[in-house]
Amino acid sequence: MSEKGQKGQKGQAADEALDDEFSVEQLARMRELVRRYLVTDGSAFRLADHDPADTGGLSSDGKKDAKTLLRAGVAWLAREQEMLYAQDDWSLLVIFQAMDAAGKDSTIEHVMSGVNPQGCQVYSFKHPSAEELDHDYLWRYLQRLPERGRIGIFNRSYYEDVLVVRVHESLLRAQKLPKGLAGESIWRDRHEDIAATERHLARNGTAILKVFLNISPAEQKRRLLQRLERPEKHWKWDSRDLVERGFWSDYMRAYEEAIRATATPQAPWLVVPADHKWFARLVVAAAIVDRLEAMDLAYPEVDDAKRAEIEAARKTLSADDD
Amino acid sequence: MSEKGQKGQKGQAADEALDDEFSVEQLARMRELVRRYLVTDGSAFRLADHDPADTGGLSSDGKKDAKTLLRAGVAWLAREQEMLYAQDDWSLLVIFQAMDAAGKDSTIEHVMSGVNPQGCQVYSFKHPSAEELDHDYLWRYLQRLPERGRIGIFNRSYYEDVLVVRVHESLLRAQKLPKGLAGESIWRDRHEDIAATERHLARNGTAILKVFLNISPAEQKRRLLQRLERPEKHWKWDSRDLVERGFWSDYMRAYEEAIRATATPQAPWLVVPADHKWFARLVVAAAIVDRLEAMDLAYPEVDDAKRAEIEAARKTLSADDD
Repeated sequence: MSEKGQKGQKGQAADEALDDEFSVEQLARMRELVRRYLVTDGSAFRLADHDPADTGGLSSDGKKDAKTLLRAGVAWLAREQEMLYAQDDWSLLVIFQAMDAAGKDSTIEHVMSGVNPQGCQVYSFKHPSAEELDHDYLWRYLQRLPERGRIGIFNRSYYEDVLVVRVHESLLRAQKLPKGLAGESIWRDRHEDIAATERHLARNGTAILKVFLNISPAEQKRRLLQRLERPEKHWKWDSRDLVERGFWSDYMRAYEEAIRATATPQAPWLVVPADHKWFARLVVAAAIVDRLEAMDLAYPEVDDAKRAEIEAARKTLSADDD
Repeated sequence: MSEKGQKGQKGQAADEALDDEFSVEQLARMRELVRRYLVTDGSAFRLADHDPADTGGLSSDGKKDAKTLLRAGVAWLAREQEMLYAQDDWSLLVIFQAMDAAGKDSTIEHVMSGVNPQGCQVYSFKHPSAEELDHDYLWRYLQRLPERGRIGIFNRSYYEDVLVVRVHESLLRAQKLPKGLAGESIWRDRHEDIAATERHLARNGTAILKVFLNISPAEQKRRLLQRLERPEKHWKWDSRDLVERGFWSDYMRAYEEAIRATATPQAPWLVVPADHKWFARLVVAAAIVDRLEAMDLAYPEVDDAKRAEIEAARKTLSADDD
């Protein structure tokens, strides 16, 4: 990790956390987790090879251990984010996709809560408006891309346009494509356009990580029943979640094909075993850190002209009698 | 504080923090701080009555005490934010304005870092683009207003258009107003338009808090010199900060008149003594909590129709053999 430059208060705290809690061995374990679940070439991807209940060799006894790792990972993330912000050329887009109750919201909350809110933007995309439906399906998302120096989180994304829109044809009709443009090749075409867009973004400094929280239907059932059994959660209940559950295999096929067509080195998918929330959070934090580390971030260099400017400023200011 | 409904993991942690660390007396002290610095009627406002070095009766021995209060305040803020999000009708806009080095960035970081990033959006406004200058000065800010259920933070705001733009006439010329519209009454007119816009927002569910971090020129000098003396901070140095310092009294007059014209019960100014960062953070956290509390937030009620829907869902799901 680069040690150049200076850290603010949070950066210092992060350093201490790293020094205190992070061993070389722990670091290696986090990198190993990322390698295990990161799909950088989708061509041979099969969802059946991914067990939602996997905990990467950590037993549930390892849960406490995982929480320590997560805490260190979040501190490390905060430190990298500070350099991302200072360097102000790269940005990072993290997309979250999952079936309902897979833990998107809580993962975002737990992984990103240590990061300076000024450097992180979260967008939750809901049903498109009439104005949005009057544009191509990427339009509303591209407007929300993170600025340079920032981490942008998309809670759902344009992948919905090859997932829910694929599963429910009425949604495709609502997109009002001109006659002849919604033909048989539409999903393949969309995959291609999405991959091309992501390639363009990467070429212009937006790194991309796409997170699929892979939950099993049995675990979803358990979590939904839990929601139904807790009166304090009833206000959030939406029976449409149950309807979508009925289309599980359609969704899984759509996910598999999307991942296959769009997992690339510049915009990989992270297929996260999500039946255990503590494990999913750890994998997500490790992967975000990994993407930031790959940018080789550093605080900006100070050149001679800047040094001269600073010397002049020091003289002016010292002579100021305020 | 409302005890209705349920809290997520963070909400529970917040509750524990409140129970552990918050006494009725501490609560009363935080409310007292807010009352002391909140300007809800600007008509008699004088900046000279506000000492930037004030610590509200807390001695610097009280610093540790203040940090405990701040931690509890942040936890409380996280809890209120969760209800704001759940209730999804109010939004809160918090505007930060200050001279350079007054601590805007670090205050935002420290006060908002405990809040779920999904419910909080921070925008830092920089030099307007050519497109933005081709619109009225409010246009670019109004596009960034927080959605219902969210806290929006503006790091600088349309108040710059009656501050820096007032101090430097060339910036006003860059706004390309048609001939005759940049007359003598322009600042009074802008104050009136801003106040009217804020009244409109409040009437439609966006509560507003405007924070002026009031630093003394001597403390600014100290902080700027400190930046100049720390090579690791040199990359951030911008000599224009020093130029603006030369216009201090112009700025203070512009601030005073803006606060006088726009401090109202629905969009008050918080004039925060900012020479002591630990104190400024506490006052800001307390004031944000105060604004949220005034909304009398609660988790949404579950009605009979919803209860029936939930009962049906429970049956369907239990019969599902996944």
